[in-house]
Amino acid sequence: MSYWLNLIGIFFFTISGAVAARDKKHYHDYFGVFFTGFLTAIGGGTLRDMMLGAYPISWLNDGNILITIFVAFIFTLFFKNYIVKLYRTLFLFDTVGVAIYTIVGVEKSLEMDVNPYAAVILGLVSAVFGGVIRDTLLNEIPLIFAKEIYATACIIGAIAYVFLHYFKLDNNIAEIVSISIIIIVRVSAVKYKLALPKFEFGNETKD
Amino acid sequence: MSYWLNLIGIFFFTISGAVAARDKKHYHDYFGVFFTGFLTAIGGGTLRDMMLGAYPISWLNDGNILITIFVAFIFTLFFKNYIVKLYRTLFLFDTVGVAIYTIVGVEKSLEMDVNPYAAVILGLVSAVFGGVIRDTLLNEIPLIFAKEIYATACIIGAIAYVFLHYFKLDNNIAEIVSISIIIIVRVSAVKYKLALPKFEFGNETKD
Amino acid sequence: MSYWLNLIGIFFFTISGAVAARDKKHYHDYFGVFFTGFLTAIGGGTLRDMMLGAYPISWLNDGNILITIFVAFIFTLFFKNYIVKLYRTLFLFDTVGVAIYTIVGVEKSLEMDVNPYAAVILGLVSAVFGGVIRDTLLNEIPLIFAKEIYATACIIGAIAYVFLHYFKLDNNIAEIVSISIIIIVRVSAVKYKLALPKFEFGNETKD
Repeated sequence: MSYWLNLIGIFFFTISGAVAARDKKHYHDYFGVFFTGFLTAIGGGTLRDMMLGAYPISWLNDGNILITIFVAFIFTLFFKNYIVKLYRTLFLFDTVGVAIYTIVGVEKSLEMDVNPYAAVILGLVSAVFGGVIRDTLLNEIPLIFAKEIYATACIIGAIAYVFLHYFKLDNNIAEIVSISIIIIVRVSAVKYKLALPKFEFGNETKD
Repeated sequence: MSYWLNLIGIFFFTISGAVAARDKKHYHDYFGVFFTGFLTAIGGGTLRDMMLGAYPISWLNDGNILITIFVAFIFTLFFKNYIVKLYRTLFLFDTVGVAIYTIVGVEKSLEMDVNPYAAVILGLVSAVFGGVIRDTLLNEIPLIFAKEIYATACIIGAIAYVFLHYFKLDNNIAEIVSISIIIIVRVSAVKYKLALPKFEFGNETKD
Repeated sequence: MSYWLNLIGIFFFTISGAVAARDKKHYHDYFGVFFTGFLTAIGGGTLRDMMLGAYPISWLNDGNILITIFVAFIFTLFFKNYIVKLYRTLFLFDTVGVAIYTIVGVEKSLEMDVNPYAAVILGLVSAVFGGVIRDTLLNEIPLIFAKEIYATACIIGAIAYVFLHYFKLDNNIAEIVSISIIIIVRVSAVKYKLALPKFEFGNETKD
């Protein structure tokens, strides 16, 4: 199931990245939209595989990943009007993608005997780094910093997965539960406007 | 021939990167100019080698690469006036460097049994990522996004190389033909002002 | 001793990175401060390990590194007022961290038979790249470009270590001497306002 989960996550992420490029003055030609979707989709997973030393990197070896990205890009071409009007659906696409990537990342790290704390961080990295690459290239503040619950939701779900994994729960159930947790936390945070406390330093005078 | 091609590409790329730094307020001391040239020259190839798992990374192992970069930097020092006045020659330097890097990157990927679609993308990455690193650090929009034909020319040449490679054409000839294609496409695009169609979404209202 | 040196460097770097986030409008919640400190601390070392192919990456394998980062973060929480008032002490924290990282990086590269010129550059990369990642994400010009002596001090110390290493000086002494050189050069440069000569091109007209 992890294999198909990964492809589903890639599909959703490509669409969210491609649409992010449409508003940007320099990026909205066909190549810019495709390449932004591509970077968003494979950026985090590639960094994770490089940090784990898990060679060969998935999209270099498995043509299905590039096919999925291309299909998602074509989907964006044909349904572009529909997607723009359904922006809230798009937010769900991005949330689902981030949730899937996080758990797939944690799972792969644990399989490679990474300690569980690092596995949680790597899961977070898998999920958000594609967006960080995209936002940095588009000269935006990365979303992970702008909306705190973004990362916190992933960390909560990743920790949940580690616990369920160590209590030997069936892996498919653990995946679904953890992914759902991330989605629920994110949607609730946006709906009820939750945020982390500010980290206030006593004397804010510039040095 | 690939070995010397690689060094020639590194030479050209170092110069184009070093000159890019001269106009930037914070970067035009000797170290900033050298380091920008260095990053532009090895950035893409290093990322490619890390994604392929092709260790040891070339410039860490082969001192000739650092020597080439340093020679190019010294060249920039002594001929700086001449280079600035010859800006169009500089554009050719950058184009030749990008063309060489693309084909060397595709070739190396195919040698490591990467599927041909991914090899084309990796060739593109080898060629442009040094510039992406440089432009992002200098707070510029990466050139690959600003001038669409930049990446498209590389992709056309990379695809040409894959075809010639699979039809078992002599490798040196395949390299020269593919590199020439990239150069010709880029120069023509600038000369005749070609660009990709814009990717227009129907309803551009902000969400 | 290298092992504990590495942890000391990580401790100092985490604090400097966390404090860098406090002034930034979007980053000063608990997660933003922690994650910035985290990236600053492990960014350079992770890139170095990936370029060396030195798997598994240290912080994925060794839980003490994450513990050190977390301890440094807690330290920042409890002593935040004290740290802000002691900004000059903070500058020393950052300088010590950079000095340690540089020498640890050079040492690790030489152990893996990298040629000494590349080892010096890798040492520099280990030390400053965490800061480059942080500054780029925070939309600042990376410090390595804004203050030239920053990188030059590291290069001088790295070269010193390579020499002492080749003359078979006791490794602990070589480390301490080289690290001290970097600290002394940096502090002197700031105190006496030293800088590299500007790299002036003859004709600065835009092209």
